[in-house]
Amino acid sequence: MAFKVLAAAKAAALDKELMTICGYSIDQLMELAGLSVAQSIYKAFPPANYHNCVTLCGPGNNGGDGLVAARHLKLFGYKGLKVYYPRPSSKPLFLNLEKQLAQFEIDVISKDDEKFSRLTSELDKSDIIVDALFGFSFHPPMRAPFDRIIEEMLKAQKLKGKKIVAVDIPSGWDVNDGPINEQVSEYQPDVLVSLTAPKPAALKLSKNSRHYLGGRFISDEIAHRWGIEIPKYNGVDEVVEL
Amino acid sequence: MAFKVLAAAKAAALDKELMTICGYSIDQLMELAGLSVAQSIYKAFPPANYHNCVTLCGPGNNGGDGLVAARHLKLFGYKGLKVYYPRPSSKPLFLNLEKQLAQFEIDVISKDDEKFSRLTSELDKSDIIVDALFGFSFHPPMRAPFDRIIEEMLKAQKLKGKKIVAVDIPSGWDVNDGPINEQVSEYQPDVLVSLTAPKPAALKLSKNSRHYLGGRFISDEIAHRWGIEIPKYNGVDEVVEL
Repeated sequence: MAFKVLAAAKAAALDKELMTICGYSIDQLMELAGLSVAQSIYKAFPPANYHNCVTLCGPGNNGGDGLVAARHLKLFGYKGLKVYYPRPSSKPLFLNLEKQLAQFEIDVISKDDEKFSRLTSELDKSDIIVDALFGFSFHPPMRAPFDRIIEEMLKAQKLKGKKIVAVDIPSGWDVNDGPINEQVSEYQPDVLVSLTAPKPAALKLSKNSRHYLGGRFISDEIAHRWGIEIPKYNGVDEVVEL
Repeated sequence: MAFKVLAAAKAAALDKELMTICGYSIDQLMELAGLSVAQSIYKAFPPANYHNCVTLCGPGNNGGDGLVAARHLKLFGYKGLKVYYPRPSSKPLFLNLEKQLAQFEIDVISKDDEKFSRLTSELDKSDIIVDALFGFSFHPPMRAPFDRIIEEMLKAQKLKGKKIVAVDIPSGWDVNDGPINEQVSEYQPDVLVSLTAPKPAALKLSKNSRHYLGGRFISDEIAHRWGIEIPKYNGVDEVVEL
């Protein structure tokens, strides 16, 4: 399906507008974004067939969306949930998201980024991998330990058929140009969940990837002014397949 | 359907626990609560058949749930949305919820509580009335202008068949004992949306009222410790009919 894209600079400016003029708090936006990621996963890989999910969270807001998504996945009935979060943020919002996960007895792995043994074993056990490492504000180069995490994630997909769901931007892709280097040159997520609006990198998605749009918090006025297309959502869904 | 109830003192203590030990912010909880109210309305009175909805918001958190619900109702396709909010809170959270409504061009009426002419005309035009005036922490007596607002709301239901959806507790009901006085002695909402858990007043609901549970943010551990029953939610729904 054809879709309009929002360039990186505009996406950042719109995010700012949502939290100023529009009056949204980051708590609200992250909650709705993470919920839409979880709903996308439910649609693409329902818990009747897919049980174990490991969410890979980066240090920024993309990682925060992943932390929220993991909680909703638990509530949606997924059984084996793990969160791999090697560079946890010390901001109160993120500490609180971790507290919520603890309350749901979701194991957050955040201290073995040197060894990766835990990461590879969790990837092995998983059916679904959520790539919430980096979003639209990522700039190369990809630093340690994330270069290695992405390598392991791609191996799990390629060699073991694990399903990857990328949040907003596949990690290691530039928001405008797609894959930044050799390592990720063949990386195609099984599902991409674009948030607010697809970014230009989404045009590099292969035809085999499914593509959802989430973040149902944009008014017609904003959509019009920023040149965003809002497709028709079904009922009360927070996500729509493009 | 039989259901377990949570007494007022316990409901307040649990709310506090959710925002301390569990790490939820009030922004998150209100967003999920308001979303579940909007989903209940969509299920009971879908926008294909019911177009106009006026949300009556009180000065506290129950009113805040209503402000959130109104925004989601707009996104769900309801056309004629009005919010009647005669005693707006000056807290930043609530001012921001109002900003969000402005962004969606939802008219918030907050300054004509002396005349009520606007209220009665909006009630007249409505198909659905959301009663988000008072929640479980309400204590009698019912003061002006809310006594009169409830009177007008009940008249619209009784004489014109408008549908009332009550948020957590029907306004004018005590959380434990139900209707507090003559004025509301016959008040039965068409729909009650209990949040987190039904309160004892829910036992006074008539068999003709539909009853939903919303607020899908409780872990099994909390449910067990507080004696709450979590019914089986369907798929990604944030609400379940009891």
